[in-house]
Amino acid sequence: MKTAAILGAGYMASAMTFPLAANGITPRLWGTWLDDELIASSRTGEHPRLKKPLPESTVLFDSSDLGTAVEGAECIFIGVSSEGFVPVFSRLLEVLTDAVPIFALTKGFSVLDGRVMRTSEAGRELFGRRFGAEALVWTSIGGPVKAYELAREIPSPAIFGTQSDEAARTALSLQTDYYRVRTTGDVAGVELSSALKNIYAMAIGMCDGLYGERMARNYHNFNSLLFNQAILEMAMIVEAESGDAATVHDLAGIGDLYVTAQSGKNQHFGRLVGTGLAPEEAYRKMESEDLLAEGFLALKAGTTWLAENHPGLIERLPLFATLKDICLDGAPVEESLREMVRTSL
Amino acid sequence: MKTAAILGAGYMASAMTFPLAANGITPRLWGTWLDDELIASSRTGEHPRLKKPLPESTVLFDSSDLGTAVEGAECIFIGVSSEGFVPVFSRLLEVLTDAVPIFALTKGFSVLDGRVMRTSEAGRELFGRRFGAEALVWTSIGGPVKAYELAREIPSPAIFGTQSDEAARTALSLQTDYYRVRTTGDVAGVELSSALKNIYAMAIGMCDGLYGERMARNYHNFNSLLFNQAILEMAMIVEAESGDAATVHDLAGIGDLYVTAQSGKNQHFGRLVGTGLAPEEAYRKMESEDLLAEGFLALKAGTTWLAENHPGLIERLPLFATLKDICLDGAPVEESLREMVRTSL
Repeated sequence: MKTAAILGAGYMASAMTFPLAANGITPRLWGTWLDDELIASSRTGEHPRLKKPLPESTVLFDSSDLGTAVEGAECIFIGVSSEGFVPVFSRLLEVLTDAVPIFALTKGFSVLDGRVMRTSEAGRELFGRRFGAEALVWTSIGGPVKAYELAREIPSPAIFGTQSDEAARTALSLQTDYYRVRTTGDVAGVELSSALKNIYAMAIGMCDGLYGERMARNYHNFNSLLFNQAILEMAMIVEAESGDAATVHDLAGIGDLYVTAQSGKNQHFGRLVGTGLAPEEAYRKMESEDLLAEGFLALKAGTTWLAENHPGLIERLPLFATLKDICLDGAPVEESLREMVRTSL
Repeated sequence: MKTAAILGAGYMASAMTFPLAANGITPRLWGTWLDDELIASSRTGEHPRLKKPLPESTVLFDSSDLGTAVEGAECIFIGVSSEGFVPVFSRLLEVLTDAVPIFALTKGFSVLDGRVMRTSEAGRELFGRRFGAEALVWTSIGGPVKAYELAREIPSPAIFGTQSDEAARTALSLQTDYYRVRTTGDVAGVELSSALKNIYAMAIGMCDGLYGERMARNYHNFNSLLFNQAILEMAMIVEAESGDAATVHDLAGIGDLYVTAQSGKNQHFGRLVGTGLAPEEAYRKMESEDLLAEGFLALKAGTTWLAENHPGLIERLPLFATLKDICLDGAPVEESLREMVRTSL
């Protein structure tokens, strides 16, 4: 592979330029209509979020240049937010002339034609309308890879979920000393784990907010209970969708939840709620600081998705149900989480 | 049950008095010959480690009063260190008149007659010499329960591994609103997870030490890789010993490794090594501060135990082997851990 296009110029999309460039692949980074400033800054200096210049071989494209960005690219990475996926992927399909493999960094659920669905399903539906669904070569990327760290050569393991042997080979060719790639055929497991971990990390954050100061950081039994419960529930959801629990018990689940629980926007959102902010208020406060609490959106979408696709399952997921009660229905944080303990085990 | 004896007066043994007392069971807390000061202080005020008074119904026994402490007790909890297990259990058997159920809070490997073995096996051997091995009702206790937090009613989930239905019922009767108990028949899984997590938590600590300051806490991808690798390897070891990987994928493994990675003595030991102290030096420094780095001892014992019981397995456990190289054979920390990344995935 010589050229790959990357759609989106936020954290993760931009960080992918590093392993690509390190492997001699020219990264073409296209920014959405929300990213023009990120692209402009990256042309002359640092990427404003990654706080360092992108690799020299990176070619930057403004939002108006999508056609040029993807022309002749041998594969396309999509790294926009879950809300951005359908509009960006739709626009991509308008300009794409050949059916090239798609690698999705986007995590979460998407809404297409008013229906909440897994992003890979929305992608398949849209792609099918243009090239026929069987022409789609799709890979969902998961694992504990924070962009800022990847850009600094901190060892970072990714898991690529794909049914395509060719895409799996491409995935493995992206490795460097610090960017490690494993592959699995369990697309549902990778994709759902990536979305769900943002939801469950909010619970860890709430616990941090509730007890971090009050208990001088002596509340890790509770956090461990929540972490463990999250993994148990994620495995149940993945299995209900015919995925493999082993995917949850590895990088896509355990690994990615670990990194997300230690830091990041969803843990931060949870912490705000744990310290007393109403969830909607916490979401808006973060939004005003240009921080997207994806877990809050994923919880809303995931609640709808679970109810429609796996009726009765939420009732068997006490932590998911508790997060829904707290974030969507105004239930009190500490009482609800402690009550969950009694039903979880 | 009305009366339970607890052997050891350190953190975990002493904290068990809280759920026992809350359930109307009189806790008889016996301190070893190293614990006389802990017992003396607890008589008149706070327990020096838990920093709060023990429940009122607790009856305290000096090291010279072991016979009185266990006389008529309906079960016995052992909460001494892994090094203390064989001497304390041997002394117990000298004064014990009836074969009562044993609940082991002790985590790690024990040395009996010059052989490294699982603590439950050492217990069975010693018990067998006195009452016959078939008279032993043994339970290994695991899960993310830090004593200081349990004593403060932070929700804490424990997992009791036992083959005895009666012991499982006793275990469940110890629950409170904040102390949650689940049971499993997989004694090996619980016991090995409890020991191994102390070893693997050292790796997380090393990463904290290496990158915490230098990378301003932006190194969580690496920590997540190590956490995930630890769980994969713990499952391999447990399965080699005919235990169940599901035990590792739950409170005994994921839950307990999580709490141990966030805080505690083994993470602290790893951090010292990560910041440049030689492992033996870090061990002695902590010892001089009355802190026992159990993971360092468990690594030594575990290396011997694995080599003798599962020859060839260490070679398939890259993180375990790397910790052995660093802690026992003087290998450089950062290079070894980063090299492990290349073989782990």
